[in-house]
Amino acid sequence: MAAVAAATRWRLLLVLSAAGLRVTGAPQPPNILLLLMDDMGWGDLGVYGEPSRETPNLDRMAAEGMLFPDFYAANPLCSPSRAALLTGRLPIRSGFYTTNGHARNAYTPQEIVGGIPDSELLLPELLKEAGYTSKIVGKWHLGHRPQFHPLKHGFDEWFGSPNCHFGPYDNKARPNIPVYRDREMVGRFYEEFPINLKTGEANLTQIYLQEALDFIKRQQAAHRPFFLYWAIDATHAPVYASRPFLGTSQRGRYGDAVREIDDSVGRILHLLRDLSIAENTFVFFTSDNGAALISAPRQGGSNGPFLCGKQTTFEGGMREPAIAWWPGHIPAGQVSHQLGNIMDLFTTSLSLAGLAPPRDRAIDGLDLLPTVLQGRLTDRPIFYYRGNTLMAVTLGQYKAHLWTWTNSWEEFRQGVDFCPGQNVSGVTTHSQEEHTKLPLVFHLGRDPGERYPLSIASTEYLDALRWITPVVRQHQEALVPGQPQLNVCNRAVMEWQGGCLAPLQVQDEPNPRGMWVLKGWADGLGCSKPTGHLRAQPPPTPWGLTHKSVP
Amino acid sequence: MAAVAAATRWRLLLVLSAAGLRVTGAPQPPNILLLLMDDMGWGDLGVYGEPSRETPNLDRMAAEGMLFPDFYAANPLCSPSRAALLTGRLPIRSGFYTTNGHARNAYTPQEIVGGIPDSELLLPELLKEAGYTSKIVGKWHLGHRPQFHPLKHGFDEWFGSPNCHFGPYDNKARPNIPVYRDREMVGRFYEEFPINLKTGEANLTQIYLQEALDFIKRQQAAHRPFFLYWAIDATHAPVYASRPFLGTSQRGRYGDAVREIDDSVGRILHLLRDLSIAENTFVFFTSDNGAALISAPRQGGSNGPFLCGKQTTFEGGMREPAIAWWPGHIPAGQVSHQLGNIMDLFTTSLSLAGLAPPRDRAIDGLDLLPTVLQGRLTDRPIFYYRGNTLMAVTLGQYKAHLWTWTNSWEEFRQGVDFCPGQNVSGVTTHSQEEHTKLPLVFHLGRDPGERYPLSIASTEYLDALRWITPVVRQHQEALVPGQPQLNVCNRAVMEWQGGCLAPLQVQDEPNPRGMWVLKGWADGLGCSKPTGHLRAQPPPTPWGLTHKSVP
Repeated sequence: MAAVAAATRWRLLLVLSAAGLRVTGAPQPPNILLLLMDDMGWGDLGVYGEPSRETPNLDRMAAEGMLFPDFYAANPLCSPSRAALLTGRLPIRSGFYTTNGHARNAYTPQEIVGGIPDSELLLPELLKEAGYTSKIVGKWHLGHRPQFHPLKHGFDEWFGSPNCHFGPYDNKARPNIPVYRDREMVGRFYEEFPINLKTGEANLTQIYLQEALDFIKRQQAAHRPFFLYWAIDATHAPVYASRPFLGTSQRGRYGDAVREIDDSVGRILHLLRDLSIAENTFVFFTSDNGAALISAPRQGGSNGPFLCGKQTTFEGGMREPAIAWWPGHIPAGQVSHQLGNIMDLFTTSLSLAGLAPPRDRAIDGLDLLPTVLQGRLTDRPIFYYRGNTLMAVTLGQYKAHLWTWTNSWEEFRQGVDFCPGQNVSGVTTHSQEEHTKLPLVFHLGRDPGERYPLSIASTEYLDALRWITPVVRQHQEALVPGQPQLNVCNRAVMEWQGGCLAPLQVQDEPNPRGMWVLKGWADGLGCSKPTGHLRAQPPPTPWGLTHKSVP
Repeated sequence: MAAVAAATRWRLLLVLSAAGLRVTGAPQPPNILLLLMDDMGWGDLGVYGEPSRETPNLDRMAAEGMLFPDFYAANPLCSPSRAALLTGRLPIRSGFYTTNGHARNAYTPQEIVGGIPDSELLLPELLKEAGYTSKIVGKWHLGHRPQFHPLKHGFDEWFGSPNCHFGPYDNKARPNIPVYRDREMVGRFYEEFPINLKTGEANLTQIYLQEALDFIKRQQAAHRPFFLYWAIDATHAPVYASRPFLGTSQRGRYGDAVREIDDSVGRILHLLRDLSIAENTFVFFTSDNGAALISAPRQGGSNGPFLCGKQTTFEGGMREPAIAWWPGHIPAGQVSHQLGNIMDLFTTSLSLAGLAPPRDRAIDGLDLLPTVLQGRLTDRPIFYYRGNTLMAVTLGQYKAHLWTWTNSWEEFRQGVDFCPGQNVSGVTTHSQEEHTKLPLVFHLGRDPGERYPLSIASTEYLDALRWITPVVRQHQEALVPGQPQLNVCNRAVMEWQGGCLAPLQVQDEPNPRGMWVLKGWADGLGCSKPTGHLRAQPPPTPWGLTHKSVP
């Protein structure tokens, strides 16, 4: 491990030298700007073939930089994928999974008390060593209890929310999701930050854009290297756009949201050029998981030619749009078939800052600098997890499914469909099918849609397995899962009442709620007794309870 | 009709003036180069999102020209679509359909005696008026009896075959498909023009490329305007590539074929620039119908996010890749959402030559010059026919299915699947479902994959129908179907023996075959007594019988 880190460090020096960067005595390493979309699919950008072709700015970003057609999320769901981005580690290592059931997806809704453990080292914490100022704009999603606050994990600034913009809730039994500026709660979705579910109008992307532009300008004026994590959520249902963009897309409201994002990205890149810091700012655009086909067509995006969507470990669930942009360093118009992963942004960002990744833990992220600067390709596996279960592995062009599952028959019969219009016999299964002894193997080059499993009698199948099997074995043997953070139905959850559920004015009034029902969705997470009336307890001290600083 | 033609003529003058072309006294109108692919799908080019992104030359062509994401074939099958391209008319008008069954696809295999009627006016015939020399390279597919020969329908030169490169046949009962240079048969597939079905090796694309390059050079040297119809077939199963391209694609053999085509297109465009005639050559790239998913993944392409493939009237069956290229006239990097159709190439080509379309018949092709030169959009319907049946209509973003059908249950149960891995309830039906009273309507912007029919109770549905219904009515009331050319099971077919079935050396030897069996496929065309032993008759005088000139 130490040898690997040393080698990485050495390669970094080489690469940075090759890129013309000063590696010693350099007062300012490159700025890092990660643009993370929410539930945006691989097929949502013009450059990835979206037929309406309404993303001229993102398409130009790709034309000026490097496009990754084979880039993956770390999980088919938001929280785990985001934890992986910021830690460089698979969610199974950081604890961003549940043991409530086999292969169950889980994230951090209001009812989950878990979050990012203190033992995890997050990218902004590490970047401090190199003098970076870090800001998160948008959705955090790594836990909403006090100890999980982004400013406790290395970020210097935050504007955004701990959770999804679901709602509106009744604001008595269940408060709306709060919005923070740094440690202060400055309002709630559907209240101070309105989202009109009928018209789809919300000004949030404009606010997030302004936050980004202001931060960039301030850091540039202060000559400080910055890390900006722009984690906006307009493409997550309920999708929204500001008035000037509403009704402008051929694709309906989802397309309106994409158009506003595209416009915003254009403005951000334009500012970087205007401030003459484009050549010193590494920008990466990607998404947290595949398009949510359960929300399509009005509230969900497109996964292009791929199978299924969010929540699944088929390509539609985890293959993402991805563009690297760094004028003067990344040659324009490149396409890289490097198998990339959102966790690589952790390692690559450290590399840009001249830092080595932590040596005391397993890091899954790859340094992509040799790829973006020199076009190098590195063999590496992509692991597809659902909760606690390794579902599939891709190596080179071959993808082996160890388990297949979409969702349960029960859920499917109720109309929840992760693969609408798609049905591959024996592949898009509604029971959890184990293939660990004889994996289903697809050649993703010939068959990106995962429709034609290789014949188990073919030489090609045997060769592929001979390659993949030891990689799986090695991974599983060495794996030390973290303490699961996303379980429900333990005592802590059952008694939990406060946190983001508290209304804005709770300090001045007695807690108005006596009861709150854990809704039926918990059943889907495999609880034995998931629902029931829960008596209110004195709330702990979560962020939601104060306008003043908490931690 | 005359008024329309006059208006078209007038617009043409305007447009040509705007394009800086001399319309009077111009010694040389622009050359016209139509690059027609065979069974290539919308999703097969990098610029349309193919994940392997192996078409740098075509992607560059699009970046230098205009991309059409909403461009359609005239039919989901080869012969009718090609007839439509060259006549500017729907196949139902020119007779390129069958009445053997309702909504049956049909083309011109060896057993069909029909072809392009003399009464049809083909593009090269008309271009003669403006001094063009015309050549077809590749597959003709408009009939193989003497009267249908391309040189009898306006082409001055031909190198290629009358039919698909299926085979090899036994060459006794059933000869291999002949290859012609002009009026001379110069060999046969699998013999003088080998295709190795085991390795996929064939040199044909290189030969077709050389034919194109030679023709262009000759015409340029002679200062003659030319029309080159480059109708190559490497992406039609059995797909093939020449040795340098075999094994070079991530996509397997199909991808090898695409790579060779991409390279060839690059060479053709390069020659135009080298000869300094790029600015005087209008080039259009498209395909005859959607990717043949029945041949996927090794022998078939991709229809991207669209539903089903070749043979169907879903988007995957008829939406095509389409790029217009004309440096100095078409601004670079444009995308047009004009609903385009392969028949427009007829009218547009005439317009380029300064000619009006024929006034004595219905012409379905639109002049795309105002679109490519000025970005103008024209409302027009796209009609989706299968055989004698109008299956669907698109107007604006709305597509109304009057009938749905993939293929019969019987065929499907035998493994013939036009929509592998796709299944949209009530849409991808295996019986012919009539919806003429209450069409299934899709919004193709929000739902390009045709997965979510609009609710018939919605205002949007009613508005869409109110728009589409009169267009359908008007079309159907005015329609005069041509005499069907693609029927089987009539007496002429039953007695037909010769034509392309004759071996190369038949002139010097007695006809060696006494019997030939019409194979079972004919059953699929709805014949009541389709098979049987047919006694040989003295052959007529088809092209296949001679090295010398026939017509």
